[in-house]
Amino acid sequence: MPDTSHPPLAVREIGSLHVGGELVTLSGLPLRERVSTPGGPVHQVDPNGEMAVGQMYAQYVRLAAPCSDAPMLLWHGGGMTGANWETTSDGREGWQMGFLRAGLDVFVSDAVERGRAGWAPYPQAYAGEPFFRTAREAWEETFRFGPPGSWHVDPALRRTHPGLRFPAGTIADFMKQCVPRWAVNDEATQAAYDALVQRVGACHLLTHSQGGNFGLTAALHAPDRVRAVISLEPSGAPDPAEADAGLLRGVPHLFLWGDYLDRHEFWVRSLPKTRRWHEALREAGVDSEWIELPARGIHGNSHALMMDDNSAEILAIILDWVARHGLLGSPTTLADAVG
Amino acid sequence: MPDTSHPPLAVREIGSLHVGGELVTLSGLPLRERVSTPGGPVHQVDPNGEMAVGQMYAQYVRLAAPCSDAPMLLWHGGGMTGANWETTSDGREGWQMGFLRAGLDVFVSDAVERGRAGWAPYPQAYAGEPFFRTAREAWEETFRFGPPGSWHVDPALRRTHPGLRFPAGTIADFMKQCVPRWAVNDEATQAAYDALVQRVGACHLLTHSQGGNFGLTAALHAPDRVRAVISLEPSGAPDPAEADAGLLRGVPHLFLWGDYLDRHEFWVRSLPKTRRWHEALREAGVDSEWIELPARGIHGNSHALMMDDNSAEILAIILDWVARHGLLGSPTTLADAVG
Repeated sequence: MPDTSHPPLAVREIGSLHVGGELVTLSGLPLRERVSTPGGPVHQVDPNGEMAVGQMYAQYVRLAAPCSDAPMLLWHGGGMTGANWETTSDGREGWQMGFLRAGLDVFVSDAVERGRAGWAPYPQAYAGEPFFRTAREAWEETFRFGPPGSWHVDPALRRTHPGLRFPAGTIADFMKQCVPRWAVNDEATQAAYDALVQRVGACHLLTHSQGGNFGLTAALHAPDRVRAVISLEPSGAPDPAEADAGLLRGVPHLFLWGDYLDRHEFWVRSLPKTRRWHEALREAGVDSEWIELPARGIHGNSHALMMDDNSAEILAIILDWVARHGLLGSPTTLADAVG
Repeated sequence: MPDTSHPPLAVREIGSLHVGGELVTLSGLPLRERVSTPGGPVHQVDPNGEMAVGQMYAQYVRLAAPCSDAPMLLWHGGGMTGANWETTSDGREGWQMGFLRAGLDVFVSDAVERGRAGWAPYPQAYAGEPFFRTAREAWEETFRFGPPGSWHVDPALRRTHPGLRFPAGTIADFMKQCVPRWAVNDEATQAAYDALVQRVGACHLLTHSQGGNFGLTAALHAPDRVRAVISLEPSGAPDPAEADAGLLRGVPHLFLWGDYLDRHEFWVRSLPKTRRWHEALREAGVDSEWIELPARGIHGNSHALMMDDNSAEILAIILDWVARHGLLGSPTTLADAVG
């Protein structure tokens, strides 16, 4: 649904790029037959040869007069694509528009093997098989819409956490945003993210879930380019015994968390590791802030914070943090842009 | 590379949606183990349950003051995603920007099983295995960059068609845009495209290659909504013996073709079927135009017309056709939008 309460954005360019990856040669596979289009001819397909492996995708929206030379890079979580920054499952505006309205250029990306990044054959190019997210896993485990045992295929028999802010009636639409994922491509994914940062130059990172560890690591790999790292419920983080948090002095970090984290085994097990990285950052003199929304009186947020019904309120908390760190000028309006 | 020769676009909203598809239940699959993020916990995954199957994705850019209430819907070809409308493989502006500059709202979509649409397990949800495009197939067969036998993994040993307008030195970047495809999902894909047309309402369709048959058929299914169909080298078309071309009176059609079509078996076999549909349209009183660029003195175009080095010239031919059919108002500039 369009938001007509704002002035139009003055946009200089919308475009996209693929970055990272290389042509890899496959061989020894048998020929196959294919009909490419209804009524089209049958033709033989040779699956052997060169194909692109390891690339990622990013779409950019560049404003006519951004308030910063450093765009906001939005990195999705596991089994998702950049689409989750473009809209909510109940059709409200996504955070992409929010950051644009705040005056920042925005890059929305799809990581290696997800969405428009494309994916490559397994086991020839990827070492293992993909995983497909079920609604039960999304509901009861990853996204914390309800407690264990609360999913049911019949909507009338499903239960949510009390006070849940995710629009649970749109779970089918949420599931349409999910894509398969592999568990064997972390190295290629990190390399592609690092290549994206090199390609973009100065940038801010906002990551979600699985994207969290990639973003925190990308900052370690390019502290001269990454101006801030905002991690929305990261599912992992660098190990302080292996990574030098001191490299990140001058790169402010924000960790932001929703509700019900103590009721889900995955989060009970993974959150302390991230907490240790936050503490290592602070001990190293890095400006790192840890926000648990319930401690601020904001209850009911799922792991899909950017889609919860108070997503605009959470975005405002992030924009306030960004502004407090001097990363954001005054919002650019159309009137400013055309001056 | 940004084009600074144009005024900024006045954009009302950028967003996206998924449409079509449904939750399907899978059962009987064995449990698996997964580590979701480096350093994260091992957890058991139950692949059984509900997942989304058959949906497609569309991103929209809505202008503050579009010249038409009907957006341009850009539908990609086989093994591609909407990204091929956003940029060329050598980094020039894509046609998405061209249509926006011309004053039309634009929807760039990913069909079922491609890109941000996501894909579902096979053989449980899809009846067959995917196909992966090799550089040789792209070069010698589908995209007509060179004649049969002209691809070589060593760039120095590759040959192109003489006068080729595709930037052949960027073939590796082109391959990064390619995604896997199935040959068993035409029905679901058509259903999702039809659902997109119903969701959008009045619209113009511009399709490429495999998207061609889907677009021509979508117009048959919704002649009250589809205002025009522009088919860029469609790889198939409805059969006049099975479809009533007369339904499309009042829906102008344009078929547009590049060069070297007589030198590639796939195109030699598929083009006459499309020609028959064009002729059936004309016989039924439909305004259908057939443009072969070489007949206009424009030589060297590949199947990737929207990426060839004269892509702006081809877009201008399409915009001229659109304007001649009264579908396009005067281009909206930022000054118009705020003035």
